[in-house]
Amino acid sequence: MTPYELRRDNVRRTMREVGLAALLVSSPATRYYLSGFELHDPQFNESAGHLVLSADGDDWLYTDPRYLDAARRLWDPGHIFIYGADAAAEMGRHLSARFQGVLGFEAKTLSFAFWQTFSENLGSLALRPADGLASRFREIKDADEIARMRESCALNQRMMEWLPSQLDKGLTETGLAWAVERYFREHGASELAFASIVAYGPNAALPHAIPSPDVRVVPEGPVLVDVGCRLKGYCSDQTRTFWVGDKPSPEFSRTLALVQEAQQKAIDVMRPGVPACEVFAAAWNHFAAHGVEKAFTHGLGHGVGLETHEPISLNARTTRPLEPGMIITVEPGLYYPEWGGVRWEHMALVTEDGMEIL
Amino acid sequence: MTPYELRRDNVRRTMREVGLAALLVSSPATRYYLSGFELHDPQFNESAGHLVLSADGDDWLYTDPRYLDAARRLWDPGHIFIYGADAAAEMGRHLSARFQGVLGFEAKTLSFAFWQTFSENLGSLALRPADGLASRFREIKDADEIARMRESCALNQRMMEWLPSQLDKGLTETGLAWAVERYFREHGASELAFASIVAYGPNAALPHAIPSPDVRVVPEGPVLVDVGCRLKGYCSDQTRTFWVGDKPSPEFSRTLALVQEAQQKAIDVMRPGVPACEVFAAAWNHFAAHGVEKAFTHGLGHGVGLETHEPISLNARTTRPLEPGMIITVEPGLYYPEWGGVRWEHMALVTEDGMEIL
Repeated sequence: MTPYELRRDNVRRTMREVGLAALLVSSPATRYYLSGFELHDPQFNESAGHLVLSADGDDWLYTDPRYLDAARRLWDPGHIFIYGADAAAEMGRHLSARFQGVLGFEAKTLSFAFWQTFSENLGSLALRPADGLASRFREIKDADEIARMRESCALNQRMMEWLPSQLDKGLTETGLAWAVERYFREHGASELAFASIVAYGPNAALPHAIPSPDVRVVPEGPVLVDVGCRLKGYCSDQTRTFWVGDKPSPEFSRTLALVQEAQQKAIDVMRPGVPACEVFAAAWNHFAAHGVEKAFTHGLGHGVGLETHEPISLNARTTRPLEPGMIITVEPGLYYPEWGGVRWEHMALVTEDGMEIL
Repeated sequence: MTPYELRRDNVRRTMREVGLAALLVSSPATRYYLSGFELHDPQFNESAGHLVLSADGDDWLYTDPRYLDAARRLWDPGHIFIYGADAAAEMGRHLSARFQGVLGFEAKTLSFAFWQTFSENLGSLALRPADGLASRFREIKDADEIARMRESCALNQRMMEWLPSQLDKGLTETGLAWAVERYFREHGASELAFASIVAYGPNAALPHAIPSPDVRVVPEGPVLVDVGCRLKGYCSDQTRTFWVGDKPSPEFSRTLALVQEAQQKAIDVMRPGVPACEVFAAAWNHFAAHGVEKAFTHGLGHGVGLETHEPISLNARTTRPLEPGMIITVEPGLYYPEWGGVRWEHMALVTEDGMEIL
């Protein structure tokens, strides 16, 4: 049994519990998770295909002629449906002829227009939003996924160990970002996991810093590097903040120490059963004890896997407990618009009795 | 007046004609086209923000706190709305307090879940699908866009002139694809326009060929290279098919000649007023006259701009005529699973009285 088949059977079990005859999966990452078919859509308004799982195992892959060859390599050719110009109508008719009862769909990622045409062609099949029914399985990584994420994270770490050798070249923020990307790609990554943040000086205080071709990374100042790669399908996400030069400012040194201490406080409480908000609080309380909590302007971390941002969120509101198999970033930061900021990030695997930093 | 303001005024004129009080723009490319704000969403299920144009000029940019700084750099700070955890509800309430009448939205790119929550919070405002109302303006490129597309296309051409120097190195398909990407990035492109196709031998016959690390580009055989870059926001898209080695097979030479002749036939008929299907027919008829039309398995071309695939489509069904300012790919191809195939692609600008190859 492939990991994909195992995952489909897990989803199928839940479908039976909630009374779904079938489930339409349209979001690329979950489609890939359950089939290995196309991790990306070709562009924002263009789908590579849809997966339908059925409670009794009569699963279908719907796609367009471009992907027929790719589909056949990983799916029973007798269960591939090739649609023409109107995917929603053709899929609706095909499904209405095969299934009865309730069809779940991902309301958060299916377009209103698709839903409308689709629902008009479903005959007696009823539609029910089922967001998270399949994708929530992605929050607990299986052995195959943990192995891939270890590799992805290890490459990210090696890059971070190499990166200081690039900081004395007088590169611009964009130049340094490109050096990072080249390192990832030339060491096995298929792409960046997300748009790189390379932010020097006051830019390091911006939550959505875009690398600039006009800002040079030169002594003396901080540079915040928040980057990730995709390797064997899986994303890594790491942040380090380096001092460029050899005279770190007292503010920088003090802030770096506080951030790393807060990260350790959070890591110390991470284990199965601990609510996400308590992990957040461990970091926040450390900042508050030093009177700097107002400079900590974002959540503490997030799940990571086939996508960079996945549930669970480590913030003040999330009462859900950690579970074994979750892989979560732990990335406290403190930001000061006048000189910059510091963020430091690890990826942590929640284990049966504690956690492990990847 | 910036290009963005001009474009918003053009859309506004149409909104008045069709009786819309306001228009919600959620698709990244059209949002960027009308505001300059964020060409990409951070990931598939995460929006960078929404734009609302109003018939009377009371335009709003809705985003989350991460993008506040980026938004302020290009939008009136008094017309930026920062939402929290429930964008759809908060935006609905904000809009219902400001507008009366009908609000248009992009049904093909807005999720069902967003639509549902949004519509429950709109008070007396009515929702109406308005796909294409704003995005169709993107089909006719303005002077600023044509200048950017010339640059993007010129870089693609320079890369194609350089590429033959890389064909005697024994690279794999993935190695060659990476060389192409590196060339683009090191000469000013921000990213690839789409996933590169580098397909050697029989792979050249696959419509969705993914570069393989196991296939080497070596004499004697054909290699099909279909690649594009994004420069100053705009996509280029070019295909060439090279013979690797110095003994091109008779099938290859004959096929290349037929493809280039068909492309020329299509180019010869391109001018304003000519239906798209007639351009397609010009190429198809040439293939049919030589008995090879069955090996021409796709459309002849497509609009290109902020996205790689845009309307108009050059195929047998599209009766809509060409218009000045359209930029369209012309990419006939012939495919033979036993040995490969040939595709050759130019980008053409429809001018006032004819066309120009970019």
